[in-house]
Amino acid sequence: MALLVQKYGGTSIADAERIRHVAGRIVHDRAAGNDIAVVVSAMGSTTDELIELARSIAAAPDPRELDLLLSTGELVSCTLMAMAVRELGADAVSMTGAQAGIRTDTAHGRASIVALDPKRVRRELDRGRIVIIAGFQGTTEDSDVTTLGRGGSDTTAVALAAALGAERCEVYTDVSGIYTADPRVVPDARQLSEIGYEEMLELASYGAKMHPRAIELAAWYHVPVLVAGSAEEAGSTEERPGTLIHDLETPTGGEMASTGEMEARDRVSGVTYERGVARITIRAVPDRPGIVASVFEPLTWGNVSVDTIVQNASADRLTDVSFTVAKADAGAALDISRRVASEIGAAECVSDTDLGAVTIVGTGMQNAPGYASRMFRALADAGINIEMITTSQIRITCIVAEAQLDEAVRVLHAAFELDKP
Amino acid sequence: MALLVQKYGGTSIADAERIRHVAGRIVHDRAAGNDIAVVVSAMGSTTDELIELARSIAAAPDPRELDLLLSTGELVSCTLMAMAVRELGADAVSMTGAQAGIRTDTAHGRASIVALDPKRVRRELDRGRIVIIAGFQGTTEDSDVTTLGRGGSDTTAVALAAALGAERCEVYTDVSGIYTADPRVVPDARQLSEIGYEEMLELASYGAKMHPRAIELAAWYHVPVLVAGSAEEAGSTEERPGTLIHDLETPTGGEMASTGEMEARDRVSGVTYERGVARITIRAVPDRPGIVASVFEPLTWGNVSVDTIVQNASADRLTDVSFTVAKADAGAALDISRRVASEIGAAECVSDTDLGAVTIVGTGMQNAPGYASRMFRALADAGINIEMITTSQIRITCIVAEAQLDEAVRVLHAAFELDKP
Repeated sequence: MALLVQKYGGTSIADAERIRHVAGRIVHDRAAGNDIAVVVSAMGSTTDELIELARSIAAAPDPRELDLLLSTGELVSCTLMAMAVRELGADAVSMTGAQAGIRTDTAHGRASIVALDPKRVRRELDRGRIVIIAGFQGTTEDSDVTTLGRGGSDTTAVALAAALGAERCEVYTDVSGIYTADPRVVPDARQLSEIGYEEMLELASYGAKMHPRAIELAAWYHVPVLVAGSAEEAGSTEERPGTLIHDLETPTGGEMASTGEMEARDRVSGVTYERGVARITIRAVPDRPGIVASVFEPLTWGNVSVDTIVQNASADRLTDVSFTVAKADAGAALDISRRVASEIGAAECVSDTDLGAVTIVGTGMQNAPGYASRMFRALADAGINIEMITTSQIRITCIVAEAQLDEAVRVLHAAFELDKP
Repeated sequence: MALLVQKYGGTSIADAERIRHVAGRIVHDRAAGNDIAVVVSAMGSTTDELIELARSIAAAPDPRELDLLLSTGELVSCTLMAMAVRELGADAVSMTGAQAGIRTDTAHGRASIVALDPKRVRRELDRGRIVIIAGFQGTTEDSDVTTLGRGGSDTTAVALAAALGAERCEVYTDVSGIYTADPRVVPDARQLSEIGYEEMLELASYGAKMHPRAIELAAWYHVPVLVAGSAEEAGSTEERPGTLIHDLETPTGGEMASTGEMEARDRVSGVTYERGVARITIRAVPDRPGIVASVFEPLTWGNVSVDTIVQNASADRLTDVSFTVAKADAGAALDISRRVASEIGAAECVSDTDLGAVTIVGTGMQNAPGYASRMFRALADAGINIEMITTSQIRITCIVAEAQLDEAVRVLHAAFELDKP
């Protein structure tokens, strides 16, 4: 008998019919002998509708008020789900974030979980009940309701799985798992059966179906996460199709040699992309200690979130600093950069707002430099110019023209043979 | 500087525009130097919509789940109201029932307040903030959310006014106060400027705009309650039009003689009515101790709520017992009564389902029997037959044919000259 934490997103529970369908799956998994704790998002587009309602009253709603307002979406879905499960003859109980013991800091709208005491969840599970928990929310020490921001319900589910020592956390969504690339862009993209936390983190950072924050938490606590579709038939929990995000086993030396698994590991897992990228370049920045801080501190104060930063090697003690921001922030970023440039004696600032990022992700890349050259060659052969390059341990990202982004994804998916198992 | 607790009902805050209008009134009263705590109901028909949503999932939703679901309606309205007040430049903070310190028993769907610790409300008021509280809800000792049942937000407001020692509780609604009769039935019905708790209780029991339970609480704690319209211009809080429900001063003997106030007090305050009344009569019940209990206990077990009970003087140790129930309960009541009748050896059961109740209310009636005869005469002159009579200290109720109910109300309103101040 396993303890499973399941999370259902808004699309999976958008109306009464879909709630009943999901309730059927939950009861099916309980009947198979598992203890089940369920985390739900708000139904369909409820959260957006509540935000719209708030904006019809106040252009910039107070964050504390907005949090209490938004938290009602998950209260509605968790009570309805508990009712639907009970209708099927199983025993269920709903819980607010507070009742589930989710304590957060006071950063309304983007609160972090500081402690999770699952004793009440545990007590109800021990009584044989299915526990349905409102995702996305917690309370501060002062009993003020907070929301966890984007990806909040995923974070609730993983945190709860960690606190309960669950066998695994199952994230059900409207896609059937994690793919080698976005199937809307690459028709022959293939679903992965498993992926490591770090690779998933890189994929997720560019739009995959789980929030990086929840994956980080899962990695830290070694919680296996199954990403799967909620629409399919339930089947056995053992053989459920989907993508398992977990600690990939590192083969020992002997195994490597005998099974050839080393090659299998050293490969690209997927291609991911991001539209709407803008690049700002500050030219001829005097290269002295502290100069980068004086560029980026004002951007932080101006609430501009910077993605990628590249600083070239300097010539004549002058260097070019480039960074990318979301297209929406480009105007603000350019204004701030121009002010800073004149203060620090840099030459000029230029921006390019029609860019996108394409990324290949895979473990072991750092030690196999052939990947970078294969990537650059594949893009070159397709006539796609690379504007900027950044790499990490398990990722290579190229900034290209947004108009060529889809083509870049397809070219790389083919170049790394991701359509083949 | 007074401390006022204001309550706004669902119709007064049914949309963003009306929320802004009410926010304007609140800020106006705060600017006049008052401390303000506000209790809000759910917007418009939200509660009914949530009940419908629950019923689309479960025919008989679990009461604990339903309570948490319904409580979201008031969370939405209190956060929006706090935002609207802040938009007008005043400082406001919303609170859930739990945050406002409202502790209840565990009777989900009809919980009673067992304790109210307003220290957080007080703290926020002391900081100069307007506090907006979600009505209709509280929490149990186990932190489960409960709702207070019908009239719940009125009860929240009065309880809070009592706990805070507020100068008065103001209940704003879509009518401008309490009338001598329903203006839809009696066009020349007159608004009362004041009324005692007990009279109001009798009026409210038959459909006036405040719940009897909230009035009982106000009477117990001597909280003056102003019932007024929310649509009018705010004006001065001192001279706000409406009906004040409070302890009517009892004149001393000397004053009575000199001012003639005694007469003024000994008068009918209003006429009220209830449609859809059914009467069940059990004939020839053996008149022995315990017999009435054996009739009414099974009705209680069958969840039938009995309004008025009349037992005639017995002849030959046989008595007739009549009682009224809501028309919707008539079938169940008749079935149960027939079973009981055969068990206790009564003759037969008959029912009449097309009745209504008309009631005159006024202090001092008991000591002035002329009122009863005037009431009976007025009805007789109009050709209205009286089916059943019950009286209390401050009320006389006649059960009449439902078809003649409106006419009965008009006749009595005229007979007691209620159109004259």
